Amino acid sequence: MDFLITVLGCNSAIPAQGRHPSAQVIDLLDKRYLIDAGEGAQLQFSRYRKSPMKVSAIFISHLHGDHIFGLPGLLTTLNLLGRTGPLQIFGPMGLEDMMKTFLGYAGVNELSYEVRFHTVTSPSKSLIYQDERALVYSFPLDHKVPTFGYLIEEKMKYFNLNREALERYHIPKEDRARLAEGADWVSQEGVLIPNASLTLPKRPPRRYAYCSDTRYFPEIIPWIRGADLLYHEATYLHEMVDKAHQRFHSTALQAGQIAAAAGVKKLLLGHFSSKYKDLTSLEEEARGPFPNAYAAVEGETYKL
Amino acid sequence: MDFLITVLGCNSAIPAQGRHPSAQVIDLLDKRYLIDAGEGAQLQFSRYRKSPMKVSAIFISHLHGDHIFGLPGLLTTLNLLGRTGPLQIFGPMGLEDMMKTFLGYAGVNELSYEVRFHTVTSPSKSLIYQDERALVYSFPLDHKVPTFGYLIEEKMKYFNLNREALERYHIPKEDRARLAEGADWVSQEGVLIPNASLTLPKRPPRRYAYCSDTRYFPEIIPWIRGADLLYHEATYLHEMVDKAHQRFHSTALQAGQIAAAAGVKKLLLGHFSSKYKDLTSLEEEARGPFPNAYAAVEGETYKL
Repeated sequence: MDFLITVLGCNSAIPAQGRHPSAQVIDLLDKRYLIDAGEGAQLQFSRYRKSPMKVSAIFISHLHGDHIFGLPGLLTTLNLLGRTGPLQIFGPMGLEDMMKTFLGYAGVNELSYEVRFHTVTSPSKSLIYQDERALVYSFPLDHKVPTFGYLIEEKMKYFNLNREALERYHIPKEDRARLAEGADWVSQEGVLIPNASLTLPKRPPRRYAYCSDTRYFPEIIPWIRGADLLYHEATYLHEMVDKAHQRFHSTALQAGQIAAAAGVKKLLLGHFSSKYKDLTSLEEEARGPFPNAYAAVEGETYKL
Repeated sequence: MDFLITVLGCNSAIPAQGRHPSAQVIDLLDKRYLIDAGEGAQLQFSRYRKSPMKVSAIFISHLHGDHIFGLPGLLTTLNLLGRTGPLQIFGPMGLEDMMKTFLGYAGVNELSYEVRFHTVTSPSKSLIYQDERALVYSFPLDHKVPTFGYLIEEKMKYFNLNREALERYHIPKEDRARLAEGADWVSQEGVLIPNASLTLPKRPPRRYAYCSDTRYFPEIIPWIRGADLLYHEATYLHEMVDKAHQRFHSTALQAGQIAAAAGVKKLLLGHFSSKYKDLTSLEEEARGPFPNAYAAVEGETYKL
């Protein structure tokens, strides 16, 4: 089952160096989600040939412009394209009023589809959304305004079948789907074979953690522990750690430290200051504490 | 004196075919203006290496998203860049509230520079702005919501000096600047030479007319008569004239008819429907009534 992260934008507030503000498309098999919607998000969807029509839920980290100024345009375009399926939008207090007021001024008072806004307030890690494919948790970050990180975990719906056991017990093909869902099997003679004898243990679910924007904030470590991929902001090099702290941002070194302490498998750095054209030094710095670190690249798709 | 129009975006509401929503930079010698600010305008400034810091006035045609969703990001970025010079913004009723409310939610309650909003209401052609280089007029268009076209006319401050006359009357170099400003000249002997004898008639000022979005609206013809360049929306081919009328847009043929009736020198078509990848047929259609017609190209600079 595919679990793909496509980076639409990974720059910080001032777009520069050809990089766009924050936005990421998450594909989990047949489901698509969006995290953040910086200006130009809808244009980036089109550039990387992803349809925004498929997006069923949007998760907004905070209300700063470089994370949301692309949302009005995206919602308007979905309306012009005649979307009918409902759209869930999660974000901090104020997001719903902000969008409705703004779209109202732009003459968009009614959409062709239903938008359900949900206010995220989690003081700790909380489950805020689930569907057939995913569980999504929010948790607080340490930024100038209320800001949330998100953890997307695949929902492990099906057991893998134990082919060898299926042969041994002569389980007919038509009964196998129910076994994958966890059912036991009863033969025509009434003999019950428990599910555990016919299936393999579920593999651990893959998990993606998104942490932007935030100061160095070790409280998140237990919430993102063991994630397959962590996207963590690294606005500055550590030589600017004071400025980072003062502006509620992290350094690449701090991102690496968080990744190492949380035991994640891979670290993707992002939310780069416009001052950095070449991102190699940020990568190198993060690799001190955490070797498997990479600077996010726009248009790239990262597979979990 | 340079008078340059750089197209940052010329697509209609749904961005597609690699085209962006409406935005244009106007350079008139050392002055820079912006007309409309569709989503991504600030990114397009950067892409085409134009600094938005130099913009002294912004003219917004109407409050539909594809003409203004780039304005909050642009104002925020100018703030982050530490702009100090005042910025004038002209647009229909509601623009100021719309921007202030939205930026407030995004945590931008105060900017490093002063923004002076001016509400455009012109029921006919009216002078709304002038500085050392330009006179800007607004006039109504026929669209779903209050919408204005803009005419930018260079201010003809200086007379061209008549070199031959200067020689004949032995006018010293240090006196020539005042002559260009319209002064007469008096010799040491007290003889007055009238300015008209020392200068050439001012050439007619160059004028640029921007008309988007609008239905076919012949009322604009006297207001844009003889413009050096007319940008007129041509959302559809004429085979869709009914749809164009119903949606308050024009066809390429209608844009050509307006250009011909107004006797402009050149026509630039724009605000293309997303359905048209190749714009040749729109150009050909407009060239029926008006041969000097071209489809606008993003990133191109048109010289008046």
